[in-house]
Amino acid sequence: MKNINICIIGGGSKQWALTLMKDLSLASDLSGLIRLYDIDQEAAILNEHLGNRIFLFGKDKPNFEVKAIDNPEKALAGADFVIISIEPGPIENRHTDLEIPKKYGILQTVGDTIGPGGIFRALRSIPVFREYARLIKKNCPDAWVINYTNPMTWCTNTLTREFPQVKVLGCCHEVFGTQKFIANKVSSWFDTETPPREEIKVDVFGVNHFTFLSGASWKGIDLFPYLKELAGDDNFYLDHTKESLRRIKEEKWFESDNLVAMEIMRIFGNLGAAGDRHLVEFMPWYLHDESFIHRYGVIATPYEWRVRRDKEKRTRFYEDKDLFPKASEEEGVAIIKALLGLGPLYTNVNVPNTGQIPWLPFGHIVETNAFITHNRITPAISSEGASSVKELISHVGFEQKLLLDSVFEENREGIFQAFLLDSLIRLSLSEARELFDIMWREQMLHY
Amino acid sequence: MKNINICIIGGGSKQWALTLMKDLSLASDLSGLIRLYDIDQEAAILNEHLGNRIFLFGKDKPNFEVKAIDNPEKALAGADFVIISIEPGPIENRHTDLEIPKKYGILQTVGDTIGPGGIFRALRSIPVFREYARLIKKNCPDAWVINYTNPMTWCTNTLTREFPQVKVLGCCHEVFGTQKFIANKVSSWFDTETPPREEIKVDVFGVNHFTFLSGASWKGIDLFPYLKELAGDDNFYLDHTKESLRRIKEEKWFESDNLVAMEIMRIFGNLGAAGDRHLVEFMPWYLHDESFIHRYGVIATPYEWRVRRDKEKRTRFYEDKDLFPKASEEEGVAIIKALLGLGPLYTNVNVPNTGQIPWLPFGHIVETNAFITHNRITPAISSEGASSVKELISHVGFEQKLLLDSVFEENREGIFQAFLLDSLIRLSLSEARELFDIMWREQMLHY
Amino acid sequence: MKNINICIIGGGSKQWALTLMKDLSLASDLSGLIRLYDIDQEAAILNEHLGNRIFLFGKDKPNFEVKAIDNPEKALAGADFVIISIEPGPIENRHTDLEIPKKYGILQTVGDTIGPGGIFRALRSIPVFREYARLIKKNCPDAWVINYTNPMTWCTNTLTREFPQVKVLGCCHEVFGTQKFIANKVSSWFDTETPPREEIKVDVFGVNHFTFLSGASWKGIDLFPYLKELAGDDNFYLDHTKESLRRIKEEKWFESDNLVAMEIMRIFGNLGAAGDRHLVEFMPWYLHDESFIHRYGVIATPYEWRVRRDKEKRTRFYEDKDLFPKASEEEGVAIIKALLGLGPLYTNVNVPNTGQIPWLPFGHIVETNAFITHNRITPAISSEGASSVKELISHVGFEQKLLLDSVFEENREGIFQAFLLDSLIRLSLSEARELFDIMWREQMLHY
Amino acid sequence: MKNINICIIGGGSKQWALTLMKDLSLASDLSGLIRLYDIDQEAAILNEHLGNRIFLFGKDKPNFEVKAIDNPEKALAGADFVIISIEPGPIENRHTDLEIPKKYGILQTVGDTIGPGGIFRALRSIPVFREYARLIKKNCPDAWVINYTNPMTWCTNTLTREFPQVKVLGCCHEVFGTQKFIANKVSSWFDTETPPREEIKVDVFGVNHFTFLSGASWKGIDLFPYLKELAGDDNFYLDHTKESLRRIKEEKWFESDNLVAMEIMRIFGNLGAAGDRHLVEFMPWYLHDESFIHRYGVIATPYEWRVRRDKEKRTRFYEDKDLFPKASEEEGVAIIKALLGLGPLYTNVNVPNTGQIPWLPFGHIVETNAFITHNRITPAISSEGASSVKELISHVGFEQKLLLDSVFEENREGIFQAFLLDSLIRLSLSEARELFDIMWREQMLHY
Repeated sequence: MKNINICIIGGGSKQWALTLMKDLSLASDLSGLIRLYDIDQEAAILNEHLGNRIFLFGKDKPNFEVKAIDNPEKALAGADFVIISIEPGPIENRHTDLEIPKKYGILQTVGDTIGPGGIFRALRSIPVFREYARLIKKNCPDAWVINYTNPMTWCTNTLTREFPQVKVLGCCHEVFGTQKFIANKVSSWFDTETPPREEIKVDVFGVNHFTFLSGASWKGIDLFPYLKELAGDDNFYLDHTKESLRRIKEEKWFESDNLVAMEIMRIFGNLGAAGDRHLVEFMPWYLHDESFIHRYGVIATPYEWRVRRDKEKRTRFYEDKDLFPKASEEEGVAIIKALLGLGPLYTNVNVPNTGQIPWLPFGHIVETNAFITHNRITPAISSEGASSVKELISHVGFEQKLLLDSVFEENREGIFQAFLLDSLIRLSLSEARELFDIMWREQMLHY
Repeated sequence: MKNINICIIGGGSKQWALTLMKDLSLASDLSGLIRLYDIDQEAAILNEHLGNRIFLFGKDKPNFEVKAIDNPEKALAGADFVIISIEPGPIENRHTDLEIPKKYGILQTVGDTIGPGGIFRALRSIPVFREYARLIKKNCPDAWVINYTNPMTWCTNTLTREFPQVKVLGCCHEVFGTQKFIANKVSSWFDTETPPREEIKVDVFGVNHFTFLSGASWKGIDLFPYLKELAGDDNFYLDHTKESLRRIKEEKWFESDNLVAMEIMRIFGNLGAAGDRHLVEFMPWYLHDESFIHRYGVIATPYEWRVRRDKEKRTRFYEDKDLFPKASEEEGVAIIKALLGLGPLYTNVNVPNTGQIPWLPFGHIVETNAFITHNRITPAISSEGASSVKELISHVGFEQKLLLDSVFEENREGIFQAFLLDSLIRLSLSEARELFDIMWREQMLHY
Repeated sequence: MKNINICIIGGGSKQWALTLMKDLSLASDLSGLIRLYDIDQEAAILNEHLGNRIFLFGKDKPNFEVKAIDNPEKALAGADFVIISIEPGPIENRHTDLEIPKKYGILQTVGDTIGPGGIFRALRSIPVFREYARLIKKNCPDAWVINYTNPMTWCTNTLTREFPQVKVLGCCHEVFGTQKFIANKVSSWFDTETPPREEIKVDVFGVNHFTFLSGASWKGIDLFPYLKELAGDDNFYLDHTKESLRRIKEEKWFESDNLVAMEIMRIFGNLGAAGDRHLVEFMPWYLHDESFIHRYGVIATPYEWRVRRDKEKRTRFYEDKDLFPKASEEEGVAIIKALLGLGPLYTNVNVPNTGQIPWLPFGHIVETNAFITHNRITPAISSEGASSVKELISHVGFEQKLLLDSVFEENREGIFQAFLLDSLIRLSLSEARELFDIMWREQMLHY
Repeated sequence: MKNINICIIGGGSKQWALTLMKDLSLASDLSGLIRLYDIDQEAAILNEHLGNRIFLFGKDKPNFEVKAIDNPEKALAGADFVIISIEPGPIENRHTDLEIPKKYGILQTVGDTIGPGGIFRALRSIPVFREYARLIKKNCPDAWVINYTNPMTWCTNTLTREFPQVKVLGCCHEVFGTQKFIANKVSSWFDTETPPREEIKVDVFGVNHFTFLSGASWKGIDLFPYLKELAGDDNFYLDHTKESLRRIKEEKWFESDNLVAMEIMRIFGNLGAAGDRHLVEFMPWYLHDESFIHRYGVIATPYEWRVRRDKEKRTRFYEDKDLFPKASEEEGVAIIKALLGLGPLYTNVNVPNTGQIPWLPFGHIVETNAFITHNRITPAISSEGASSVKELISHVGFEQKLLLDSVFEENREGIFQAFLLDSLIRLSLSEARELFDIMWREQMLHY
């Protein structure tokens, strides 16, 4: 039984914080203290209450105690693990990210990773993450930090820039969706039960949400020939507009049919390994108008829904059944266990590049497989990616690095250059300047 | 008096062949034989006649004899210099390059360097240049080859791929225009006569037609502070639509006001060093519609004019005054002299990258300054370029290399990938495929 | 129960072949056929006999059948695993490797990896490995090839040069010795039982026999501070001459006190991770004379012993107790199991560089940790090595690559350059040439 | 007539200062002021006197005025050119460099560039050059700095580390000697007058005193086939012991027969382009004992002569004939003129690597050809060097960079690592440590 001390930054979050606590409740070999810190103190206090209820289900004695702490330094002091899952600023900031670019004809499906929305979300997040990096350095320099916050690459990279010794990884489940997609296909290809996604071994490379597979296998069988055949079949790409319209009606924003992921494979040779709603934001060929992406089954999450959901989460009442712990599909607890030495884990993570992607800058946060063992993350070398896919990723990597460099150097022109180089910006330079300035000003209003 | 043997491939050309012969006629330290080869044999015979008239002006005895030769191997045999300036296939092929993309909303100002037009022109040119590379290897392996043909990068690179030992350089006068633009500014900045363009020392880097200056000086004075100030002045960018409309009316297709070149400098820090009509074809921010580029004074050369001019040239009658030699602004003869050891020349050339641009693939044809001395071209290292400009050029370099690799490997999918990665292609992947297939088929008709 | 087909090239070997068969006999989840091929057919037939006795111990039914095959293609046909452990040419060749250089003052402790001896052993081995690569390509292209033969780097690299798709790894137990050395220290540092060497987690990097640790831990405890303290203690380096003389007398050639390994750590920061007798052959600071290396406890294995032992092995009579299977310390069978999907293995292997050591040429055979899973070897990125250690390894990598390139290009001068660049060659160029020529000629006698 | 302001640091030097003033006296297009600064103020005052005499020869009016200044800041204030030619510390320091290593069996021919002597001379020089870098930055940041001081690479690199914007080049005449050697051969190969050395066009690459030619031509004729033939001729390498003994007797320390330079070419393919006495100090194959190098015509300059000559120079009386200006073979004045815009110069210089040697660290001081034009030095790309020569130079580059990094980081262990990696150090590690410590202590005595 390992006794550990966890601090959750964004501890008032209804999504990640509750999910993690449920998974921890099921971890019979772990116990300890969970401290919740949130700038919305009330939300943290509510989560303290909910968390302590979670840890009581089916147990004589809770394995974790949950406490809301109103001071970030006290919450961090001596932590073994720090989980970060925050929203930088009020939800109204998403208006800047999504609605202003829309007026200039720029459609974004998510707008939290890349594109004008992702860039401005980064501009809001970076100062916040710098501050947390300083607090971690001061209060728990040896803690493992697990970041769930988007834009993943920029947020995680801010931590390593500000505090280079930080032990950090960024976690994202997008690749799991790709594994499940393949697992389903395996079931039909080999006339078998759908295997669990973990059985689909994948070679992941890229930057978060713009990840690709250069290989995939199941029980030692190379699946790429099967995937390539499927990717070459016109029937796979039938018009998904109806499906899209249904999704919009049902507010199913997060589904993916992987038509974009597979089309990239058809042409360039590597399978996109994130939901299509993410992939399309990194390339100039998709986000022309809503009806066009609907053909791929891709829909944009609307700003008004985000605002509405945010409000709902704040006012929701939690019944017992909402708190009853059942295993999520997230890997946070599995990662914590692996880092504690309770068995190795091989999965995809976002960590600084030390050579796992030799053609991206060293130090850049990249997503590949890694081996997680006692107090150690060892990135794995992927098989060789397709040259054009590498070029696409390199361009994104350049944009990401330029933005981060420019923020640290307080160079606004560099930030604008990064904005211009984004593949969703196809405005004239003067229109781009105008859009940039308006977003900048509106964003300031909420600070 | 150096006696040399020059072979002009495309010797029937009215433009380059006559210009070169006039410059040679003025070169009192050179003499010898000029052999003209052209697949349009009649045009070569006419140029033999015109050429021999040129060499008689103002002389007792012509310094060169001109002969049309109807066999390329005989024309090349033992040549000291080979000049290549050809049109690959009939002018009607330009319909494929320019008019088909236009139907898909893709505007091109020139369409012979990059973009769908440049790519298909390359696809026609590469087999022709491979054949000439083989003939040069066989008939005059020690000759210096001076290429004037566009797309410059692809054509020149084809020669070095097919015959790695070839002594080749590609010549282009676009940078001269930038020097003249600066020279004019120097005149007003320093209240002096406009200096000759050679006095404007420039640090050139890039690939042909997408070249930039990382520095410029006149008589040891650093001109970049002056240029940056001008680039930052809103008055420089006043609407040039009227000017554009006048140019269209007067069929002045080749003029440039350098608004694009300077806007790039304003934002990214390096001055564009080719005419604006070339620069805009490499970036996603300009070629949205004709009215937009007219604001920059940029106009597109229409297909119908190209066809009309081609016809006119074929039927034109040359009077004495058309043939009277006066020095052109081209550097071909100066380069020939420098290579013969008649004094060094420092100018910009297109040659294989041996490190002059360390962030582009070695072997790629790049444009930088070089020192031309006896039988030798030594590229010069430029001062450091701006990082975003380097990223833009890198992307173009990747596209160019991928296309050339794919043609040599007979990999049509690789060619299509290069097409997709072009910054003018912002179609959906299925539309892009359709356009590519239509261009491919139409082009075949003319072979 | 996995049924597999193993081919042992060098199947007449008394050392590796018998050890492997004993380990296979203990593997209750494996069964199948072992085919032995050896140019010494008699030895293979004897091993067939011994092998079949091994597989009978303690079982009703042997899990493997052993057959000597007199034709390499038949032995390889359809193999799942190929084990290579051979001696290239008669033992008398070692006279060339060891005794001739000695006449020029060049002392070698092993002479099979690097130095003049290693180089000439490579020159004999490369043609043999090229032939086996061709046979594997033809007869069992999907087999996993496990190479035990020295010089490991050159032999394994020959396979990948000749047949790039070959699935190969090189296995070496030198790092295990370093793990045991550390495990012993752990016992005293933490007042505990000596842990099994597998519990000592090490970050390995380098080329075979010139490997280093950039990190080591036990149960999550960083051991480098402890190792560095020990390395800085003068008492660790007391004169080991007596120990050396005893070893010579007792013919204990393979022991190591790790004084050299630790001295390198003291000065350069990374622990040498091979026996001292190997390490000293890669650096110019040790092999001055026998008495000097004796101070480090390092002794040279004499040529006459090698000849004598070779003879003894051929004539040895094997009793039951010699054949009774007990687990060796080798990892061959564990690797076979991991590649069959019977659980992952994390260990150090020699495989082509795909980025695990970004500062060595890609494709070069390097030694690092790797994850061995179903039909897959994924190299792990090490933590950053010390810069001077990287420089030392880089130099060796250059020498190794130059030699291999030169052999494949049949460029004898390149081979001589590699010889000159070896750190044991400090002769004048003319003496070096003389030595090289004599070794070359003498070696030819035995072909 | 250009009016310029020159400051000579080390202005009391009898060698460089007087030579430069003579050359300046002959420069009819230059005039101005020369300020001499020297820590030996008396020597500077004497040189003021001698200098003013020099400028009077054959003129009505001296073109330069010479003034000794006793304060370095006043000497530097507003200088257009700064010449640095100094001896760091008293001549007795050379005892440390040369005599102490000799006791450990380490023979050095020069001992001022590399090897233990060069390293310790660097350790004395770096603090001095840091101080001058700061003074230049403060008093004349736009001045061109021409460094003549050895160790050239380290001294020049110190200036650029301390003051990155410094406009500096290092000048060395060793390559001129190689040009003269070739010019003499040209005379016999082509039965012509010996051409001036400038007519021998050479492709230089490397670090100062360890420079090589990858090509050479005369009037467009490739000389490498001729040089290679000569290098392959055994007669070229006849025993030069007699010659060496004569040189020792006559105290002709600086002559070179280029046997080493040519032997390197014979084996590795590139001609050594520095005097043999320098080349041998960079490689492990020559400096075994005096009699061995005598066979190559190479002799070591003895410490006692250096001390004696130092004393002689201080007490020498200068007659008119010693001061009468005649053109030296140095290029300092030609470089000054070129930088002033009085015509371009193409020659070899030591400047920071910006890509002219892409396989050495950027920023390292390297020696290649460059074009010197108005206020600008543009390095030229050499033709490709031989791979083994590149490896040898890379190793030296690593040692040089490590030492400089370590001095700037005040990391004595890093300095010792650099010392160990020097190719002249083949001691055991403990002896090497002892030697290092003794040199360190003795050197301190003279500070």
